[in-house]
Amino acid sequence: MNATGKIIEARKLIDAARMDGLSIGFVPTMGALHEGHVALIRRAREENGFVVVSIFVNPTQFGPNEDLSKYPRTFADDLEKCLASGVDLVFHPDADEMYRGGSSTSVSVSGITDPMEGSHRPGHFDGVTLVCNKLFNIVGACRAYFGEKDAQQLRVVTRMVLDLDLPVEMVPCPTVREADGLAMSSRNRYLDREQRGRALSLITALRSVEEGTANGERSASVLLERARQLLDADAVDYLEIVDPSTLARVDVVDGPALVCGAIRLGATRLIDNILVGGKR
Amino acid sequence: MNATGKIIEARKLIDAARMDGLSIGFVPTMGALHEGHVALIRRAREENGFVVVSIFVNPTQFGPNEDLSKYPRTFADDLEKCLASGVDLVFHPDADEMYRGGSSTSVSVSGITDPMEGSHRPGHFDGVTLVCNKLFNIVGACRAYFGEKDAQQLRVVTRMVLDLDLPVEMVPCPTVREADGLAMSSRNRYLDREQRGRALSLITALRSVEEGTANGERSASVLLERARQLLDADAVDYLEIVDPSTLARVDVVDGPALVCGAIRLGATRLIDNILVGGKR
Repeated sequence: MNATGKIIEARKLIDAARMDGLSIGFVPTMGALHEGHVALIRRAREENGFVVVSIFVNPTQFGPNEDLSKYPRTFADDLEKCLASGVDLVFHPDADEMYRGGSSTSVSVSGITDPMEGSHRPGHFDGVTLVCNKLFNIVGACRAYFGEKDAQQLRVVTRMVLDLDLPVEMVPCPTVREADGLAMSSRNRYLDREQRGRALSLITALRSVEEGTANGERSASVLLERARQLLDADAVDYLEIVDPSTLARVDVVDGPALVCGAIRLGATRLIDNILVGGKR
Repeated sequence: MNATGKIIEARKLIDAARMDGLSIGFVPTMGALHEGHVALIRRAREENGFVVVSIFVNPTQFGPNEDLSKYPRTFADDLEKCLASGVDLVFHPDADEMYRGGSSTSVSVSGITDPMEGSHRPGHFDGVTLVCNKLFNIVGACRAYFGEKDAQQLRVVTRMVLDLDLPVEMVPCPTVREADGLAMSSRNRYLDREQRGRALSLITALRSVEEGTANGERSASVLLERARQLLDADAVDYLEIVDPSTLARVDVVDGPALVCGAIRLGATRLIDNILVGGKR
């Protein structure tokens, strides 16, 4: 396994692999790797000749009051996990390498970035699309593996890839969960014992919508009203039932819909989502 | 020579050339090819194993009151010129192919896009960066040949390439001029005999600044005042002396500076620039 923080080095190694006829599988991460990331890496390993994992805690996607400085950094452990899962190249630039000349160029997706995470984290998706665009330009033509836990991010980046004709095949991968249902997240490390218990309320609420629709309830407001009763009202950033493609709110659940939520537990913010009313 | 309007076909041919070890030279154009374009193509031909010319009159870089509909389209003649200058692939998508799903993604450069063309053509550079970004993503790693006549465009696109880590080497090429000094432009075709005569005033004004600096005048306002006397005041969009890198106005010409101007002749708008006070 190779590891480099330099763009020019990473590009050289990836281009050489490509010239050898190998397909490139790419897993962009912010480090603090967990079983969710490992599942992305394993899938990339199965489907490609050369697997690249990037580790970069991207400052431009954090708001001024968010957790950039305390975001978990577990580089040695991340490298071990990459090595154990057969990664060929770990690309781990620092912010100076990624934003050398500052950046007077913005890459922005409109519309689908407005609701949910977009409305609660102003500027977040501009940071995500900028860094993903740069990483895709560094890695080049590839299959890129993204977790479905970040449902809106997946759709925003997919929209960018299509709109800009990037030579990237987006591969969405199912959310990996703890045994009790909590979605794997690097931010779960922040939770104390009591918060870890309450964190479960989010997936419980989402699953109550699934159960409600399975039992024939079609009204989004009824389903959400019931689900909200399972959550601490003060701690909910949003809980919504949306169209899986456009992320527009749906009033009547008469086909596949995405139930998305975000809650706060102390200073920690968790998101999750499940698809209801259709096959995943 | 191959020619295709399809992204997938173009990418296939270019990727095959790259896998054969050929470097890619890319000349993006809006067609209506003239000797300026041919010079770009010749340079690309000398320096690369595979030469791609794109011909696409990009609607997103024209303002609502600009000349999109009457922009000269001379496709048969363009193909002949490409064939004669040894082009390998002409990529000529239509707007449906380039903007299939509409585009909710924007690519925008701030700062350097504000003065001159940016202030007279609102939205113009957003259209330029969007289409260049898409074309670069389609063509992939390449040397890209841009004429220095469009001085601000060259700098804006270069900024985007650097900020987004695009695998593109920008190659600026000198402006090609008619025998009397008029910069070659597809829009010169619009000019009637009388306008063609007056068109020359722009390069005459720019050269008066060159002469003034050569004679020791350092004040930008004095130099510009003299130069403006050579132009029809009603027809000048701007005439400026700017820093060659930042495009910020300079007050004292004590090093290399770019003299840039735009004039209107009837419905036709022409731009030109020359470097003064230093070697090109």
